Amino acid sequence: MKLFDGGRAPNPRRVRVFLAEKGIDVPKVSVDMGAMEHKRADVSSRNPLQRLPVLELDDGTILTETVAICRYFEELHPEPALFGNSALGKARVEMWQRRIEQNLFQPVAFAFRHTHPAMKEWEIPQVPEWGEVNRPKAIEFLAFLDKELAAREFAAGDDYSIADITGLCAIDFMKPAKIVMPEAFTNVQRWYRALAARPSAAA
Amino acid sequence: MKLFDGGRAPNPRRVRVFLAEKGIDVPKVSVDMGAMEHKRADVSSRNPLQRLPVLELDDGTILTETVAICRYFEELHPEPALFGNSALGKARVEMWQRRIEQNLFQPVAFAFRHTHPAMKEWEIPQVPEWGEVNRPKAIEFLAFLDKELAAREFAAGDDYSIADITGLCAIDFMKPAKIVMPEAFTNVQRWYRALAARPSAAA
Repeated sequence: MKLFDGGRAPNPRRVRVFLAEKGIDVPKVSVDMGAMEHKRADVSSRNPLQRLPVLELDDGTILTETVAICRYFEELHPEPALFGNSALGKARVEMWQRRIEQNLFQPVAFAFRHTHPAMKEWEIPQVPEWGEVNRPKAIEFLAFLDKELAAREFAAGDDYSIADITGLCAIDFMKPAKIVMPEAFTNVQRWYRALAARPSAAA
Repeated sequence: MKLFDGGRAPNPRRVRVFLAEKGIDVPKVSVDMGAMEHKRADVSSRNPLQRLPVLELDDGTILTETVAICRYFEELHPEPALFGNSALGKARVEMWQRRIEQNLFQPVAFAFRHTHPAMKEWEIPQVPEWGEVNRPKAIEFLAFLDKELAAREFAAGDDYSIADITGLCAIDFMKPAKIVMPEAFTNVQRWYRALAARPSAAA
C-alpha cells in the first residue's frame, strides 16, 4: 500500500491527520503540488482528475477522494472511531463533516484558489469575484459554529471525529486565503486550539 | 419521525429516491422552496442554515444534510446496501459519490444558481461568470465518467448505490441549468436511462 501525498495542501493533510489519530503508518510517495507535480504521469495515470491524495493498494487498486480514503481505513481499523458510533452518532458525524466542508472548507478553498496570484495556473479561469464572495460566507458559518460549540467539546458531539479534522485544516487554510478569524468567536477559538494542540495536527 | 421535504429541488429528491430504493415510508412535511418556504420559522428553527431536507426524530433530534440523513437510514435498514459492502466497497461508493457531487452535482447547481433569473433572491450575490465557468466543468467530468461507465453498470461498480442517485439527480438538474448532455456520451446515457427507468426515480 502507498499514499501519494500532497505536502501542505489541505486535503492531503486531512488524511495524514486522520492516520495519525488512528496510529496507522502508510508509506508515502511525495508529490509537490506547489511544483504542479500532481500533473505528472504517475499521479494522473492513477487519478485522471489529477487530485491528491491517491491511495494505491498492494493489488494496484486505486482509491481517491480524501474522505473515501479515510473511510477505508476506518473500516480496516475501527478504533478509535472517527466516523462516529451508533446510527445517530454516524449520521451526526456525516452531518457536521458536510456542514464544515461545504460552508467553511470549500469557501476558504474558493477564496484561496480564485484570488491568490499563485493559483493562476491551477484554477483556470480564476473568477476573483467568486473568491471575494466566499470570504464572508466562511465568516458567517463560523458565527453559526461558534454558537453550536458553546454546548459541546467537538464539532459532532463529545468525541473527536473526522469533522474536527476538516475544521482544523479549513481554519489553518484561512491564513493563505486571507480570511481573519474574528476575535469574538471564542468557542471556535477554544475548539481550534484544542485540535491544534493534538500531536496529530503536526502530521 | 418526519421529513421536511423540499419539492423539486435536487437534494430533497436524493433523499426521496434513497428511501424509495430502501422501501421506507417517512411522513413528510411539505415545504415549497420555490415560494422560499425554507426560510419559514418551522424550518429555520430546525436548521439555521435554512436548507432542506431536514429530518426530525420522534424525540426532537434534528438531522440535516442529505447524505447524513441517508446514512442514518442505511444504518437502521442496511438492506439493500446503498453505501456499499466491505471496506473497499464502502470506500468506492464514497469515492464515486464524492466525485459525482463535486464534479457534476455542484457545478450544475452553481450554473443554475448563479445564472438563472429566478435564483436572484436565493444566491446573494449571484456571480454569473462563476455560473458560466461551471458548465464546461460539468461536461468535462461527464466525459471522464463516460469512459469509466464503459466498463461497469453503475457508478461505483456492479451494484446500484447512493452515487447513482446523486448522478441521476444531477443529470435531471442539467435541464434548468441549461447544460445539454452531449450525444457522444453513450455510456453515460445508457446509465442515466437505466436509473431514470427505476420506480424510485419518480419519488
